[in-house]
Amino acid sequence: MKNSIGSSVSLTLFGESHGAMLGAVLDGLAPGIPVETDYIAHQLELRRPAGRISTARREADAFQIVSGAFEGKTTGTPLCILIPNADTRSRDYAATRALARPGHADYTAWLKYHGYEDYRGGGHFSGRVTAALVAAGAVCLTALRRRGILIGSHIARCGGVADREFEDGAGDIAALNEKAFAVLDEAAGERMRTVIAQAAAEGDSVGGVLETLVLGLPAGVGEPWFDTLEGLLAHALFSIPAVKGVEFGDGFGLSALRGSQANDAFALDPEGRIFTKTNRNGGVNGGISNGSPLRIRCAVKPTPSIYKPQETVDFLRGQEAVLQLRGRHDPAIVHRARVVADSVCALVLCDALALRYGTDWLGGEGT
Amino acid sequence: MKNSIGSSVSLTLFGESHGAMLGAVLDGLAPGIPVETDYIAHQLELRRPAGRISTARREADAFQIVSGAFEGKTTGTPLCILIPNADTRSRDYAATRALARPGHADYTAWLKYHGYEDYRGGGHFSGRVTAALVAAGAVCLTALRRRGILIGSHIARCGGVADREFEDGAGDIAALNEKAFAVLDEAAGERMRTVIAQAAAEGDSVGGVLETLVLGLPAGVGEPWFDTLEGLLAHALFSIPAVKGVEFGDGFGLSALRGSQANDAFALDPEGRIFTKTNRNGGVNGGISNGSPLRIRCAVKPTPSIYKPQETVDFLRGQEAVLQLRGRHDPAIVHRARVVADSVCALVLCDALALRYGTDWLGGEGT
Amino acid sequence: MKNSIGSSVSLTLFGESHGAMLGAVLDGLAPGIPVETDYIAHQLELRRPAGRISTARREADAFQIVSGAFEGKTTGTPLCILIPNADTRSRDYAATRALARPGHADYTAWLKYHGYEDYRGGGHFSGRVTAALVAAGAVCLTALRRRGILIGSHIARCGGVADREFEDGAGDIAALNEKAFAVLDEAAGERMRTVIAQAAAEGDSVGGVLETLVLGLPAGVGEPWFDTLEGLLAHALFSIPAVKGVEFGDGFGLSALRGSQANDAFALDPEGRIFTKTNRNGGVNGGISNGSPLRIRCAVKPTPSIYKPQETVDFLRGQEAVLQLRGRHDPAIVHRARVVADSVCALVLCDALALRYGTDWLGGEGT
Amino acid sequence: MKNSIGSSVSLTLFGESHGAMLGAVLDGLAPGIPVETDYIAHQLELRRPAGRISTARREADAFQIVSGAFEGKTTGTPLCILIPNADTRSRDYAATRALARPGHADYTAWLKYHGYEDYRGGGHFSGRVTAALVAAGAVCLTALRRRGILIGSHIARCGGVADREFEDGAGDIAALNEKAFAVLDEAAGERMRTVIAQAAAEGDSVGGVLETLVLGLPAGVGEPWFDTLEGLLAHALFSIPAVKGVEFGDGFGLSALRGSQANDAFALDPEGRIFTKTNRNGGVNGGISNGSPLRIRCAVKPTPSIYKPQETVDFLRGQEAVLQLRGRHDPAIVHRARVVADSVCALVLCDALALRYGTDWLGGEGT
Repeated sequence: MKNSIGSSVSLTLFGESHGAMLGAVLDGLAPGIPVETDYIAHQLELRRPAGRISTARREADAFQIVSGAFEGKTTGTPLCILIPNADTRSRDYAATRALARPGHADYTAWLKYHGYEDYRGGGHFSGRVTAALVAAGAVCLTALRRRGILIGSHIARCGGVADREFEDGAGDIAALNEKAFAVLDEAAGERMRTVIAQAAAEGDSVGGVLETLVLGLPAGVGEPWFDTLEGLLAHALFSIPAVKGVEFGDGFGLSALRGSQANDAFALDPEGRIFTKTNRNGGVNGGISNGSPLRIRCAVKPTPSIYKPQETVDFLRGQEAVLQLRGRHDPAIVHRARVVADSVCALVLCDALALRYGTDWLGGEGT
Repeated sequence: MKNSIGSSVSLTLFGESHGAMLGAVLDGLAPGIPVETDYIAHQLELRRPAGRISTARREADAFQIVSGAFEGKTTGTPLCILIPNADTRSRDYAATRALARPGHADYTAWLKYHGYEDYRGGGHFSGRVTAALVAAGAVCLTALRRRGILIGSHIARCGGVADREFEDGAGDIAALNEKAFAVLDEAAGERMRTVIAQAAAEGDSVGGVLETLVLGLPAGVGEPWFDTLEGLLAHALFSIPAVKGVEFGDGFGLSALRGSQANDAFALDPEGRIFTKTNRNGGVNGGISNGSPLRIRCAVKPTPSIYKPQETVDFLRGQEAVLQLRGRHDPAIVHRARVVADSVCALVLCDALALRYGTDWLGGEGT
Repeated sequence: MKNSIGSSVSLTLFGESHGAMLGAVLDGLAPGIPVETDYIAHQLELRRPAGRISTARREADAFQIVSGAFEGKTTGTPLCILIPNADTRSRDYAATRALARPGHADYTAWLKYHGYEDYRGGGHFSGRVTAALVAAGAVCLTALRRRGILIGSHIARCGGVADREFEDGAGDIAALNEKAFAVLDEAAGERMRTVIAQAAAEGDSVGGVLETLVLGLPAGVGEPWFDTLEGLLAHALFSIPAVKGVEFGDGFGLSALRGSQANDAFALDPEGRIFTKTNRNGGVNGGISNGSPLRIRCAVKPTPSIYKPQETVDFLRGQEAVLQLRGRHDPAIVHRARVVADSVCALVLCDALALRYGTDWLGGEGT
Repeated sequence: MKNSIGSSVSLTLFGESHGAMLGAVLDGLAPGIPVETDYIAHQLELRRPAGRISTARREADAFQIVSGAFEGKTTGTPLCILIPNADTRSRDYAATRALARPGHADYTAWLKYHGYEDYRGGGHFSGRVTAALVAAGAVCLTALRRRGILIGSHIARCGGVADREFEDGAGDIAALNEKAFAVLDEAAGERMRTVIAQAAAEGDSVGGVLETLVLGLPAGVGEPWFDTLEGLLAHALFSIPAVKGVEFGDGFGLSALRGSQANDAFALDPEGRIFTKTNRNGGVNGGISNGSPLRIRCAVKPTPSIYKPQETVDFLRGQEAVLQLRGRHDPAIVHRARVVADSVCALVLCDALALRYGTDWLGGEGT
């Protein structure tokens, strides 16, 4: 299956930027998990554009759960969430249809779908599809939280500015999940927003690095070949538009160390439980969780939609052209993508946990 | 499925470091592809330890193809390659069984398999299992080469030394595929080997970065969600032991650029064909190949098996301990892992191409 | 994945009998296939209850395609079809919630979902979910028809009455696809309807046997182990509510023959093409299509919802009870299930063909 | 994946009738399950030809477990079983390579694999491949037995003779699993063997019906769409060579009943547990196990390899021909196929149970 991921718990996404609706089908999740509509709305709100550093497109992101929930809880059957597209201005896109936006999927979509693709606003490739992913991910995040598994992401770097590192895992996660612009150090966040606004003023865009922390994941989850925990997470994370790199623990930084520096020594805590004194491997050894927090970083490239004139090709007419974008575009998406990263991680972990402990493990106690 | 990957073309790995045999079942590959035993042996030779910078363990890596090949060609039915384990010294490992090697899977394997795992020499987690992967990957590499798709990797960085970048794609790939230590700049390679030997002398190890180039891949391969080309490749690449990060194009480097720098402008070549003037996105837009070369980088951590004393825990006795490794270990594996990276990429691309163009596309013309 | 089927072309179903909507996501289908809304409506009409031999529940089966179609053709991205539930009378079901209807899924659903299931009207187990399957199947049937592959089913047996056998494949299929009660021999059909009406008058129900014919399927499709064409079709066909047996060719009848009777002799037609003189194996040898028509039969048990009093158990109170069903129920569903059988076969064959010949094979020529 | 089945517990088969080896990779099975080599040998013995009613080909069926077992128990990593081919007479087949045996896969294999297939002795399509399936299935059967789940099959019908029905489930299963010719009524068995021998004397062959009983399966296993327990089992059972029909409970017989006859009434046993007073639905309602025994029947067609002259085509020369088979062939395989049916059911149920209850449920208690 293609636009789906997961084996025991799975997600299927559908919808185009300017179609009638977006949606997600979340299947295999245990019965009895509260479907917290306020929380779903909260997560969608975190994904929505906001203020001077985001696109002017506004969507209420009203969502409707049309199946798989009954009396406020998951039923265990496929849960479908629909999100209507309200504020679409398709006329913005028709004229420039064949002017391939550099860094975008216009050209590859045309190659793959032979011109039958819905090209308006990026169609099925639009970041807007992540709204459905976030709504479904919210249910997964609820399921994990009830089992003591917490997930949160911050903007570790953006426009040359670095946030501080995670210090107080659970506290940091709680704080981040309330912030529209997820940084641990507000001063760093202010500097990031300034850089973004400056790029926007120049008709340009910036990228960044997201770092996700997962607390409370049981040890022993993942497979040696090929369904390593890293492989499963990376597979899904690369679907987030603009993600071009994924690393675990110190990731690329590890490649510059010596083994004596990179290895995480094991030790016993006062209760006799095994832990690692450092966590350079990001909570995974041999593809399997070791009980330490997962640390995951995603490289988010600068938004490809910029207002500066760009060289390109009109692929229908077969001639070179200059692209001058109009419409509504984000000068950065790293701050909006972080809730997508949380959602993707939650989905993948629900699947891995359901495979490991059975389909009921994440669910309710029975009515 | 767990120790398998791929949907139309798939690979299943089995075997333990000190068991009777390792092996791979390669299924779904088209009929009529030459099974070049010399080339398989060549690829296995590239993976084998060599000289002062590798483990003293020596394996002839004799392999036997027991199914799926007939009269020198693939039949289209599952191809099974067996590699016997000859030079095993299990007594090296029994004593230290419960002393979890930091950075290794000993502890997570024990958590997952409850003590039933074959712990000798890393068991199923051993890098030795990649011999079977390389043998199967060689058949995939042959299949791709016949279609004009070339794959090669070099050690882009190791121990603080950088190799030169790819300049002449096909020529560079041809040269690399003959080298035991795959660098484009021999002087850089000599410095890398010096750093590795120095670390070895200190009982330590080093990591590095592998860069893989793929030429000739048709445009239009991959899916928007979730089977992006990046996601599919990363899923498999994270199975290579010690890989902790994967990036495409400029990857994490892109996250520090502006959109005007990161976007690859489209242009027309003299024959009117569309190409990108730069390739910072590594040949993939929106999860789909755009016709430019794929550029993939993997972060390889330093070998966790080092001779320096390390703090750890005996997980059976529940007490802290100092681990003093003996046995035969690599001070670096980045130079051995590169042929594994080639093999993994070949496997994933065969699968994606078979899905796109059908099961016969990679095969022969019929007898 | 659970409520999904297919690997290259796949279908995911969602929805409950008395929820807001039912739906299907059809993914992986080639771009450029006409989305014939009239034909979809026609197929839904064939599935709908009609006259004295069907439930009194009436649904307009208005459907909405919210993604994956653009300018009247498939885009190649996931196509989602929604069907709202309009005429629901939930109060019919609440009182008898824990009175397990014999032959139904009430009790097993409760065991599996621990009471969180939406029990109204059979919930996700309701035959009503097949409306979404039929709508998606109509798109698959269109795709196949454009490639010369025709599918049609008739009620081979019902209530002790046998229809005549297929004689003129394409003509018979064309005739059947216009009939609300699909029989080749109208006199036999009239006798069947009489038997059904008689059972209905007694508060009882009848079953039957569906026979599906597939013309024009290319030879060479299917796999030896385990994705045989028979296995793939049967896997999906057993999802049709009430199907309890599936056979190919002469099926169970073959088991009573001698080899010399059961084997289909090969011969050459005047143009020198190979064909089989008989088709007792139903078009499949060794799991792979041989170019002869596929012949598939499904055993459909009598509708379990009957008005006669039945012994059962109240599984919440843990006491025996007598069940006296009210509400609206079909005295037979074999005539409504046949279009579901066509749809399921079309879906499975689209998947098998896309795997064999690539994702574009079923699609358009490009815009 | 193609020559594989299963999602949490999976099996991959490889090998050709006249290649070096056959084998199976069983992945995902829990660690700590005893690997009973005597029992595996016993099961292989049940599959082997015996006496006047079987092929003269004799194979010792020596098997070797080369991975996934350690100190007599499963490790949880892929378990590979190899079975060498010893007694092959390839010269028997070369001359008749292009003379398509009616009822066999020679012609479809040639269409699918374009002449690259290993055609000797049926190649990968040979019933001999089931030896590997039986060996792997034996490990699954052991795993289930430790959890109180028992599986056994008998020849319900063969050559016009019917065996008696199951009466004492566990006792009948125990008796059957010791018999080379699995009937409950020895007098019926003797008559069956007479019919088989008579057909053999005429150069012909006979088919039959296998009935499998599964006791002790927990209720609540299976999915509504599409991974019904019936669908999962049928998918795999159709891989058994010569199986052309699969039914559950009364199967096709149900289609001739009224609902009041076909429904299984629920009742309470003296301990207050729910059971069904009859079991016409074969232990499955709505695709999910209901706690009653599973009853599965497979139609096995007569062996297509017969000595009587047959009309066929030489597909390389494109001319009609008369086929006069030589070599060693079974006049019936239904008695050999029954242990394959047990193995297939065991595999599918291990997978379904691991999905439902987690990967450790079938395993050991830890070392």
